[in-house]
Amino acid sequence: MSKINRGNYFEDFTIGQKIVHPLPRTISDGDVSLYIALTGSRFALHSSDELAKEMGYKKRPLDDMLMFHLTFGKSVQDISLNAIANLGYAEVSFKNPVYVGDTVSLETEIIGLKENSNGKSGVVYVHSIGKNQNGDEILNLKRWVMVHKKEKGVMSGINSIPTLEKSTPILSEINIPKLLHVNTSATGGEHFFEDYEVGERLNHPEGITIDSSDHTLATKLYQNNAKVHFDDFMMKSTPMGERLMYGGHVISIARSISFNGLQNAMWIYAINAGAHANPTYAGDTIYAYTEVIEKIEHTREDIGLLRVRTIGLKNMRPEDVENPKDENGKYLKNVVLDLDYTIIIPKENR
Amino acid sequence: MSKINRGNYFEDFTIGQKIVHPLPRTISDGDVSLYIALTGSRFALHSSDELAKEMGYKKRPLDDMLMFHLTFGKSVQDISLNAIANLGYAEVSFKNPVYVGDTVSLETEIIGLKENSNGKSGVVYVHSIGKNQNGDEILNLKRWVMVHKKEKGVMSGINSIPTLEKSTPILSEINIPKLLHVNTSATGGEHFFEDYEVGERLNHPEGITIDSSDHTLATKLYQNNAKVHFDDFMMKSTPMGERLMYGGHVISIARSISFNGLQNAMWIYAINAGAHANPTYAGDTIYAYTEVIEKIEHTREDIGLLRVRTIGLKNMRPEDVENPKDENGKYLKNVVLDLDYTIIIPKENR
Amino acid sequence: MSKINRGNYFEDFTIGQKIVHPLPRTISDGDVSLYIALTGSRFALHSSDELAKEMGYKKRPLDDMLMFHLTFGKSVQDISLNAIANLGYAEVSFKNPVYVGDTVSLETEIIGLKENSNGKSGVVYVHSIGKNQNGDEILNLKRWVMVHKKEKGVMSGINSIPTLEKSTPILSEINIPKLLHVNTSATGGEHFFEDYEVGERLNHPEGITIDSSDHTLATKLYQNNAKVHFDDFMMKSTPMGERLMYGGHVISIARSISFNGLQNAMWIYAINAGAHANPTYAGDTIYAYTEVIEKIEHTREDIGLLRVRTIGLKNMRPEDVENPKDENGKYLKNVVLDLDYTIIIPKENR
Repeated sequence: MSKINRGNYFEDFTIGQKIVHPLPRTISDGDVSLYIALTGSRFALHSSDELAKEMGYKKRPLDDMLMFHLTFGKSVQDISLNAIANLGYAEVSFKNPVYVGDTVSLETEIIGLKENSNGKSGVVYVHSIGKNQNGDEILNLKRWVMVHKKEKGVMSGINSIPTLEKSTPILSEINIPKLLHVNTSATGGEHFFEDYEVGERLNHPEGITIDSSDHTLATKLYQNNAKVHFDDFMMKSTPMGERLMYGGHVISIARSISFNGLQNAMWIYAINAGAHANPTYAGDTIYAYTEVIEKIEHTREDIGLLRVRTIGLKNMRPEDVENPKDENGKYLKNVVLDLDYTIIIPKENR
Repeated sequence: MSKINRGNYFEDFTIGQKIVHPLPRTISDGDVSLYIALTGSRFALHSSDELAKEMGYKKRPLDDMLMFHLTFGKSVQDISLNAIANLGYAEVSFKNPVYVGDTVSLETEIIGLKENSNGKSGVVYVHSIGKNQNGDEILNLKRWVMVHKKEKGVMSGINSIPTLEKSTPILSEINIPKLLHVNTSATGGEHFFEDYEVGERLNHPEGITIDSSDHTLATKLYQNNAKVHFDDFMMKSTPMGERLMYGGHVISIARSISFNGLQNAMWIYAINAGAHANPTYAGDTIYAYTEVIEKIEHTREDIGLLRVRTIGLKNMRPEDVENPKDENGKYLKNVVLDLDYTIIIPKENR
Repeated sequence: MSKINRGNYFEDFTIGQKIVHPLPRTISDGDVSLYIALTGSRFALHSSDELAKEMGYKKRPLDDMLMFHLTFGKSVQDISLNAIANLGYAEVSFKNPVYVGDTVSLETEIIGLKENSNGKSGVVYVHSIGKNQNGDEILNLKRWVMVHKKEKGVMSGINSIPTLEKSTPILSEINIPKLLHVNTSATGGEHFFEDYEVGERLNHPEGITIDSSDHTLATKLYQNNAKVHFDDFMMKSTPMGERLMYGGHVISIARSISFNGLQNAMWIYAINAGAHANPTYAGDTIYAYTEVIEKIEHTREDIGLLRVRTIGLKNMRPEDVENPKDENGKYLKNVVLDLDYTIIIPKENR
């Protein structure tokens, strides 16, 4: 085995293979502040220990997307260092709160492999589980990536595609404290589960321009070492011509922007599906709008769930986009994110 | 009430109205490190727990300007989201030390309203009080901003301007520990209250160039969501043509630069008046000079106060500026800040 | 003495002179997170409290280079503010682990002075010792810098050059815990002392592009106030034409890149010699390769030391460089760093 890790190729994976990703990561106050600085996130639960305590937490828990990036970042060097494209996510769920001081780590099982007919690449389906230092599950996700073959043209004929759910199942147990009190003068929003309607669309007014230092600081913080995000010299010799922004940063910016309209939806329960519709580069200004696609009652009486679709845009305002796809079903060139996810929001009548 | 907060317009305010700003903010070590990274601040009290303990603190307190930004940032979404201009500050005072772990929040009372004769806008005068989680007052300020009207041309005739002090009153109680020991080999300065003279001018030698990521990281960290600072796509269609730097960041940079000359003046007691004389953009290099305009004796024998005026400059060295205003009383185009504030400095003979 | 510190000139130094550098610095979690964000560092010992505890630490210790920058930065204002060039380092050693919460400070003795024959400058040789709040030595280094004279042409004839070791002596006591367990699935590397050979070369595959905010945030974080790094307005009137990147940041980037190949070499024992072969500017992409130049057995049976040479490159891949110098012994223009240092790595057979 070489001392240099050049990542795995399609042929290196086998179904049932388990990978313990290196670099467990202790999360600190520094990560939390950087996340706010990098995204402008304003969800109150993640900003204030006092508010979090009023809501039944021991202190403010981590923003779900920050936890996602710090945990998920571990898998890049083993799974997607030689990826051609991140094709999709499914059944992503956020199981338990994570706090500053926790150490997160990730393990992955290969659950599917499909060789491409061009003989140059294949699709790898993985199931990853993130845990904290006590072994509690904090992240559970499936994703599939197109990966280069080492030996082009040598065919194995493998074609095993796993069954994936269209939406992440919702469990009867949800690990957030019973919400006795929600202080709306602190959260910045007066709207609860009952106030949202299926079909409703929220055009979030903020736009955030991302500079090269912003997205590279974020991706380095997550110890995600995919070269396309960092190495401008290499990227200059590709059709892209410059560093590509980490798609996860676009999700975080869109989520941060969605605060203005979803102020009390402070928890992500699950990501059902996600597409990075077009690449994003330094200098792009990200906007977003959100549509409510389903209202989901839960056995718990204090909360409900909203399945929503957030469309991320670059250099185009939400009010200028009616449909993210054209008549041929192709994403408009300014659409950068199509995220189908489920958020938790308190009920007004708890 | 819409779920989207588009900010308040002139007609939305009434005299006596009280606003509890959302998003209480727990301050962390991450905020402190980011502040040093973003400003290059070197005042010793805020750099070292050991030094702070020698001076009678439990640990290093927050830099006053960092506390200001984190607390003040809360008011933007309610007061100045639709502001045309921040016209001024008065009677800004810093009452009690703030530490990592504290949670700060802000409330505001509307104390004056003056309709502009053009029918398009008006001036809103506010009095804001910031507190920590124990209810101790940490920030007290008045400011006035010009705000758009929702309905142009509809006149209400309101014209109520509050009385504002020319300088922040100095109280007999000042909440800093009695300074038994000041270790000048640690603070980096050998000069005390007795060494400064009215009329003395300090040309600070450092210049700091601000890039777009620097000022946008700072402003997002403060959860200040004024769009002019973040949304380059929007700003391209304005006469400015690009993102405007948050004026508070310019104050912080000027304060940081003033270390070289005011090393032992580690506390801001008050801001008496401040003007952002010209806009600042990414790529500008900030310089500063400070004039001592008043020496103020206090009943406490260990400290004195200096009322000073710091002039912030862009792309022009202090030694090249005699007067920040031209013969017509207009600020030179390279002047970006005119800050009249009062700092506390130990006496040599304590 | 002026209130403005303009730094020392050649004539201001005398042999035997001792300087206590101001601004002791308490290190926080924020510094650690920023360091990861600024460099992409992935050495496991500095990422995870859990892993550090398994290896015998109370929690994750600071990355050696982060400690170096935070401590060393203190000396700039007294030693090298008027430096023309940092000429070299010798006998740099890292004595004891440093943790978040520690406060570091630095003292320097002048050990040599050599006047240049041009009458304009001289070389100052210094010996600096960094300590934590308990007085434990954490850093010990010698360096020499070329410094401007105040009065050009006035000759003193001083010519006292200290003896410097070609390599930092290796002590029998090394303050790292006895390594009972090294979890390679967490560290990301399976290679130990026994696996490396003298003459072996590792071409690290990652390249990291540095933007202006990246290197200026780093340097401000370290409270290093050398103007060449911050003041673009001033630098525009120099032959460089723009801000120069702090050489220490290049070392950190090269060290971070070297993770891929040296995953288990988590400790720097010493820096034997270092040259910043060419300047680095914003926009440059840094690559690196490492050659093993000596394998050093230690009386401790659990560890060995590797003396290595890391060559940092800008905008050129390691595989495109055979020798960092041309036939005349001059560094190639893309070579930015030539660092001879000694790292500690566990033995497989412990």
